[in-house]
Amino acid sequence: MTDDALNKLLEDIKTGAVSIERGVNLLRNLPCLDLGHTRFDLHRSIRNGFPEVIYGEGKKPGQVAEILAATTEHINILVTRVPEEMADYLLAIYPDATYNAAGRTLTLIRHPITYGDREIAIVTAGTSDLRVAEEAKTTCELLGSRAFIVPDVGVAGLHRLLACLETIRKARVIIVIAGMEGALSSVIGGLVSQPVIAVPTSVGYGASFAGISALLGMLASCASGVTVVNIDNGFGAACAACRINNL
Amino acid sequence: MTDDALNKLLEDIKTGAVSIERGVNLLRNLPCLDLGHTRFDLHRSIRNGFPEVIYGEGKKPGQVAEILAATTEHINILVTRVPEEMADYLLAIYPDATYNAAGRTLTLIRHPITYGDREIAIVTAGTSDLRVAEEAKTTCELLGSRAFIVPDVGVAGLHRLLACLETIRKARVIIVIAGMEGALSSVIGGLVSQPVIAVPTSVGYGASFAGISALLGMLASCASGVTVVNIDNGFGAACAACRINNL
Amino acid sequence: MTDDALNKLLEDIKTGAVSIERGVNLLRNLPCLDLGHTRFDLHRSIRNGFPEVIYGEGKKPGQVAEILAATTEHINILVTRVPEEMADYLLAIYPDATYNAAGRTLTLIRHPITYGDREIAIVTAGTSDLRVAEEAKTTCELLGSRAFIVPDVGVAGLHRLLACLETIRKARVIIVIAGMEGALSSVIGGLVSQPVIAVPTSVGYGASFAGISALLGMLASCASGVTVVNIDNGFGAACAACRINNL
Amino acid sequence: MTDDALNKLLEDIKTGAVSIERGVNLLRNLPCLDLGHTRFDLHRSIRNGFPEVIYGEGKKPGQVAEILAATTEHINILVTRVPEEMADYLLAIYPDATYNAAGRTLTLIRHPITYGDREIAIVTAGTSDLRVAEEAKTTCELLGSRAFIVPDVGVAGLHRLLACLETIRKARVIIVIAGMEGALSSVIGGLVSQPVIAVPTSVGYGASFAGISALLGMLASCASGVTVVNIDNGFGAACAACRINNL
Amino acid sequence: MTDDALNKLLEDIKTGAVSIERGVNLLRNLPCLDLGHTRFDLHRSIRNGFPEVIYGEGKKPGQVAEILAATTEHINILVTRVPEEMADYLLAIYPDATYNAAGRTLTLIRHPITYGDREIAIVTAGTSDLRVAEEAKTTCELLGSRAFIVPDVGVAGLHRLLACLETIRKARVIIVIAGMEGALSSVIGGLVSQPVIAVPTSVGYGASFAGISALLGMLASCASGVTVVNIDNGFGAACAACRINNL
Amino acid sequence: MTDDALNKLLEDIKTGAVSIERGVNLLRNLPCLDLGHTRFDLHRSIRNGFPEVIYGEGKKPGQVAEILAATTEHINILVTRVPEEMADYLLAIYPDATYNAAGRTLTLIRHPITYGDREIAIVTAGTSDLRVAEEAKTTCELLGSRAFIVPDVGVAGLHRLLACLETIRKARVIIVIAGMEGALSSVIGGLVSQPVIAVPTSVGYGASFAGISALLGMLASCASGVTVVNIDNGFGAACAACRINNL
Amino acid sequence: MTDDALNKLLEDIKTGAVSIERGVNLLRNLPCLDLGHTRFDLHRSIRNGFPEVIYGEGKKPGQVAEILAATTEHINILVTRVPEEMADYLLAIYPDATYNAAGRTLTLIRHPITYGDREIAIVTAGTSDLRVAEEAKTTCELLGSRAFIVPDVGVAGLHRLLACLETIRKARVIIVIAGMEGALSSVIGGLVSQPVIAVPTSVGYGASFAGISALLGMLASCASGVTVVNIDNGFGAACAACRINNL
Amino acid sequence: MTDDALNKLLEDIKTGAVSIERGVNLLRNLPCLDLGHTRFDLHRSIRNGFPEVIYGEGKKPGQVAEILAATTEHINILVTRVPEEMADYLLAIYPDATYNAAGRTLTLIRHPITYGDREIAIVTAGTSDLRVAEEAKTTCELLGSRAFIVPDVGVAGLHRLLACLETIRKARVIIVIAGMEGALSSVIGGLVSQPVIAVPTSVGYGASFAGISALLGMLASCASGVTVVNIDNGFGAACAACRINNL
Repeated sequence: MTDDALNKLLEDIKTGAVSIERGVNLLRNLPCLDLGHTRFDLHRSIRNGFPEVIYGEGKKPGQVAEILAATTEHINILVTRVPEEMADYLLAIYPDATYNAAGRTLTLIRHPITYGDREIAIVTAGTSDLRVAEEAKTTCELLGSRAFIVPDVGVAGLHRLLACLETIRKARVIIVIAGMEGALSSVIGGLVSQPVIAVPTSVGYGASFAGISALLGMLASCASGVTVVNIDNGFGAACAACRINNL
Repeated sequence: MTDDALNKLLEDIKTGAVSIERGVNLLRNLPCLDLGHTRFDLHRSIRNGFPEVIYGEGKKPGQVAEILAATTEHINILVTRVPEEMADYLLAIYPDATYNAAGRTLTLIRHPITYGDREIAIVTAGTSDLRVAEEAKTTCELLGSRAFIVPDVGVAGLHRLLACLETIRKARVIIVIAGMEGALSSVIGGLVSQPVIAVPTSVGYGASFAGISALLGMLASCASGVTVVNIDNGFGAACAACRINNL
Repeated sequence: MTDDALNKLLEDIKTGAVSIERGVNLLRNLPCLDLGHTRFDLHRSIRNGFPEVIYGEGKKPGQVAEILAATTEHINILVTRVPEEMADYLLAIYPDATYNAAGRTLTLIRHPITYGDREIAIVTAGTSDLRVAEEAKTTCELLGSRAFIVPDVGVAGLHRLLACLETIRKARVIIVIAGMEGALSSVIGGLVSQPVIAVPTSVGYGASFAGISALLGMLASCASGVTVVNIDNGFGAACAACRINNL
Repeated sequence: MTDDALNKLLEDIKTGAVSIERGVNLLRNLPCLDLGHTRFDLHRSIRNGFPEVIYGEGKKPGQVAEILAATTEHINILVTRVPEEMADYLLAIYPDATYNAAGRTLTLIRHPITYGDREIAIVTAGTSDLRVAEEAKTTCELLGSRAFIVPDVGVAGLHRLLACLETIRKARVIIVIAGMEGALSSVIGGLVSQPVIAVPTSVGYGASFAGISALLGMLASCASGVTVVNIDNGFGAACAACRINNL
Repeated sequence: MTDDALNKLLEDIKTGAVSIERGVNLLRNLPCLDLGHTRFDLHRSIRNGFPEVIYGEGKKPGQVAEILAATTEHINILVTRVPEEMADYLLAIYPDATYNAAGRTLTLIRHPITYGDREIAIVTAGTSDLRVAEEAKTTCELLGSRAFIVPDVGVAGLHRLLACLETIRKARVIIVIAGMEGALSSVIGGLVSQPVIAVPTSVGYGASFAGISALLGMLASCASGVTVVNIDNGFGAACAACRINNL
Repeated sequence: MTDDALNKLLEDIKTGAVSIERGVNLLRNLPCLDLGHTRFDLHRSIRNGFPEVIYGEGKKPGQVAEILAATTEHINILVTRVPEEMADYLLAIYPDATYNAAGRTLTLIRHPITYGDREIAIVTAGTSDLRVAEEAKTTCELLGSRAFIVPDVGVAGLHRLLACLETIRKARVIIVIAGMEGALSSVIGGLVSQPVIAVPTSVGYGASFAGISALLGMLASCASGVTVVNIDNGFGAACAACRINNL
Repeated sequence: MTDDALNKLLEDIKTGAVSIERGVNLLRNLPCLDLGHTRFDLHRSIRNGFPEVIYGEGKKPGQVAEILAATTEHINILVTRVPEEMADYLLAIYPDATYNAAGRTLTLIRHPITYGDREIAIVTAGTSDLRVAEEAKTTCELLGSRAFIVPDVGVAGLHRLLACLETIRKARVIIVIAGMEGALSSVIGGLVSQPVIAVPTSVGYGASFAGISALLGMLASCASGVTVVNIDNGFGAACAACRINNL
Repeated sequence: MTDDALNKLLEDIKTGAVSIERGVNLLRNLPCLDLGHTRFDLHRSIRNGFPEVIYGEGKKPGQVAEILAATTEHINILVTRVPEEMADYLLAIYPDATYNAAGRTLTLIRHPITYGDREIAIVTAGTSDLRVAEEAKTTCELLGSRAFIVPDVGVAGLHRLLACLETIRKARVIIVIAGMEGALSSVIGGLVSQPVIAVPTSVGYGASFAGISALLGMLASCASGVTVVNIDNGFGAACAACRINNL
């Protein structure tokens, strides 16, 4: 609830336009839609510019459908970590929805998205990192930022990265996605002046430890000004990139 | 070296204004000042907008002085992790330098800094996090962004945070610094729409594990769009915040 | 064996009402029902007020049925971590039993439970934490304390929590269940004066490390007087809450 | 701020007794005493019954003295982790203060403490755990609960524990403090029906890992209803015990 | 190869009874039966008193059968970690073999085992630890020591343990098997004077970390003279116990 | 791109044989074959002597087939981590390919391999390490080095190792593959003067921690001059061995 | 308290030779000497054959002296982890005590020790492991077993170990002490049939992780029947070895 | 002992030139010089081409001097991890020795070293890695390989590395030394065809975890054929590099 709204509410209470009892209630109940098991946050899009996001993993298709039923008239919806079975179930109900199989995202767009003119680059070290990149791209676009993917430019073949550098530099914000040792964010961080958000991925085996090596490498990076999100968290990286691109 | 410069160089080679031999040398040697043990990177400020930064920890005062002697006429300098003895040694040689004892930074400003008009908020959970906040603040200012600190608003006393929220929201970028469980970044990330950069600190004991608990908590945050830097890395957070604020 | 019982036994031995040989045996064999593979503890409910609890995970339906057959006439029974197949098997034998599918608990109530008048609040950060909350709720009720669940009030949407605060404060003991960074227990711990028991859950991915991040965050909490139980241990939190509520 | 206070404030705003501008300010500034680097929380004792606590580690004697100067007329004060030098410094200024060298606590009592009639037992596995026990005991007493220490009853000499069991059972809440494998809390948890709060200590070497083994052992305990606080956190255990004893 | 054999061989070489070439070969090839992928160690039973042991996990039934075919005329055989399918396959070929389903062991006894008169006690904390206990028991018996299991005497119900103490003390060597916090070995270690070998098991969840908590607890034990083997390693504990019992 | 090529290119630009625009393009695009999702590195075999390698794990058979279709006319191909289903799929398309089921490798040889005359020894501690050894052997051979495997000579049966020592010493480079405690590389490293590359394997259970114990043991080895690659990384060890054998 | 004693006590109660009240007290107070901070366990030597042991680390010389004053007339005493200053302090009071500077042990022998005729071998991998070996040797001797040290036979120089093998085999029990990768216990375990107790030491650097690598290696050992104690725990290994040697 | 020597010895025994008793002794005692606490390995230089190396850390100057006294007439000596005080002590006794303060090595050269003509490149990411580089360089030279250091070419300033690439490629073996995220070895591994040995260093803070992040990054490297040694182990990397360069 913004300060302006608070001022307005207090003024309405003073004039009697809003009773005290109702004032207490408004401060409590307004921003939530209570489904019993879920407190759906209808005002989040007002508060910080995001559509509602449903984390699909561990939920049943029916549960997700129930949430969608309660909400889709108000705002755009992004469901992440959607397995194919859940996608089939939901697409049967919402034929207008779009499923990105690579990124395992399902989107329901009910009001048109206005895009800014600056783009977000999503750079990956290997082809196996693409699933995270696709999740990030879909998220960016739903949040109002166009994005493009530069795949497979890991540091062991440095010429591949250098060949794409000019393209990468055209973006306003750069998301770097890498597994194994995660070195790509250090190298790119040293070559550009834009904000760089690093996403470690669980790609690799043995001492990759399901993304921990990449995570530690990105955190310990020798390049200044690189920030990091959780392992495989393409969604979170996109949110951060859009917070920046919306400035 | 930018693409424009590469085009220019190749053209000069074509016209003979630059010989082939010299072209090869230029591609190699230009951007480095070689001190024997250190390859000083004079062009970094051109390439990504940063002054030269010297990491003081583990270096001897004399070594730092030697690096400063080779560089200060060209660019502004920031030395981080400067213990008091090193500060005394360097201030005797460079009386114009400024030492921030709380943040353990020493700055040498040789050309005036132009500040933009948007500020960076640096929010701390406890008073013990202030040393990291001071390092961040000095860094921000040297990189051309004004910054202000909001101290001691940890989540165990939520009203302290809520009372400062309007102030925090006035900033363009927010750095959140917290030790122990690092919950402050999740709470602030849910209350604002700006970019939020979280810095875990090594404050706490036992299961705080010198910052690891805070680091993990910040990475696993339930608030979308929070990014994280290394433990106690106020400098890195400031670099990231300024990359954003410079957009 | 209580001290009174020890006094009584020694007196009986003195008077000869109990022979020495039998005294030695009584000290040994009384409180156990030996099924061969299991030493069933019939006196636990006398000793610390708990019904017998069977941990279902890793056991076969037939094994659990065998234990139930030996015990149900004496005391109430709680089986935890009961998969659906085991529930079906046991319900066929014990149609009076109750299965809570969400919390994976099965209860057999053979003597009526007397409830005290103070309740236990079970607060969860997300909807995915509900399975742990349901295990806790069933356990509380079997142990004689009424409990209610306040779901989905994680700290990234702080207004949801604040809207429920008065409800939470009505409880005598508060169980806080959260995955990811586990920040909810710090925030609630700072807002109430009741005992707060925190349960980390394995909800989340990547650097959530199956509950370790939440566990560390809860242990390192900046809020004084919050205690912690094992990851996903809704049963244990309920036992602790009832030890307190029984005071 | 309680709900009653919120109602009262809104009523005052309605009647004009409080202006809107002042209403906004009151909601913001009331509960904090701002020392510049520290937001001192004067209302915490009202909100959750605790005196103000200052964590001494990492602070300078002068900083602590400054905080004490701003606060001691209002409430009782507890300073924890006070090294001897800091104690000497503060005792020179506050001769009425009391220093517990074993527990490294300093207390300043400005209004009399009213004790309830039920006590807290603090049980330790070894003599090396006593420093944590002393911190817990001082904290309990400042928070209004009498406490007594049962030292050196570790499980490798089980008869020592059994000999003290009746004494332990007289308490209303039990704090168990143990290093190494932390088994004492499992054994006591199985022998009593009271709430048991376990504190792992950093006593031990090698695979004790500075308290991690004890911490894990206590969390994984086979005794139901034992809760755990951070390593060496006698203060936190006492806060939790008093939250319970105050019921 | 013993020193006596070495002396004999050198003497034979001196006398010419063994040629130099053959001497070199004997030193090399004698003790191995080479199956191509496996160097079967026929002399191990001579060297350290053990039958040949085949670790079944990760092998295919056919591979194990092939090894058995090459070896069973010489010595007794123990196959560990035998899943049911492998047992069925092998029992069809070797109807004389014995399968212990609980301990997942298969034994082929071709020459009679001579037992000593002192026994090994195998004590478990819970019923879930029985699979490890069964593996240990079968191994002990194949190695020539009779063993008996005392199940389900975990420390949370201390009276169950005390009731069995006299039985346990009759053994010459004691194996203690426990998951979760592993406290049982500390308690028993303090109550008996015999050698105690502790086996952590992967029983438990969350912060049990698949046996790590029990392992650390057993290593950090406050009881002197308890030794530890790998998690779930009932076989190894039995080998160690028999090395001792064979003295 | 080598320096010679750079010199040549700059000269061509000077003479006008290559236009500036084309010069920029050549510097960018030459060494990559862009399949959309994969930047195939055609020049890697020129640059560092390796065939193209495709990591099969996590890819679909069709994706691998697509990559093979684009590349097989140019160079030899190695696909690693190929499950049986993928092998069947690819062998149907490429009947000339060879599948090594034990090592899970598939090779497509389009131009003959020239072998040097010095060999690489691949020594394993147990039979379970053979799958890693086979991956290493296939890789060595594709990279132009003959290799042989010495299986099952772990340190618990030292005589097996000593019997093979002369064979091992005939190799120019030695790869040592071991799980559990990884001690074999220390013992061999102390017995030979050749380069020794150690590969930890995920063989073992409990405190083997899927190869971590072997990895740490090999890194901490008391034998000087042993180097280590990632867990189960037979491919990487072979690449390193061939870099050496190619000298 | 032994069972015989329990029978006797119950009989005395029956005859009235012991009153009930006194019976309760005897069961409680007999075996402890209460120094306030320490419950000294006078009967431990009866119960499991050990002298009293005081862990010196973290105690002050005066505290240790106080404990010694209360106990030395009854039994032999071993103080471990005794720094030089503590030794000087105690030797001034107890000139008959013996200080082993290498092993940091101080012993006070008040009644003669009877030695058995079988010895314990203490084998170390490097000279740096000797401090742990000395602690083990002193402990063995105080517990009634003669012991000898075989130093510096680490596996990287295998011939050094083989040259000492016959000596080692003469012992009844073998303690193996090694840092770094801890491979020595696997090799010895495979060469002898005696009980082998492995002690990891904190010798080494980097990935030795203060003994963790050695600990894991020893636990994961491929040699059957090796048991392990805590890092640097020479005392514990000796206790275990003497439990065995006393059989 | 080589096989040739073994053949010769057996022949001498056959002819009687060597008695059987002496044969047994020779097989045992020849290669060791026993100083009591140290078994000095005089034949190691014969067996694998290395001089004797003494690890100085944790030893006292007098102990090192004693070892030097017993050995210097035979072979060249390298003492590593030599603090300044130890160096002063040893230089007073051996004025011919050379102390490298940066690398903390002391060398005593008693017979001239023959160098091969191919060199080893030692590349570091930062100036703080130089101490490890110096240890490596001294070790290489003592082992007969010339080496040169390329300092401060970390991946955050990629042009610095590219400018030195031709120099690096002239070496026969490349040692890459880097802290923080350790990315340098991946980048160099992808640019050269020589053997690359990576050394993680403990440079960095927070999530660098004293070299663990660099270690994991190097192990998980996406560049094929890079091998790794222990953290800060410049000595071990040099040994490995010389094993290769000696081929």
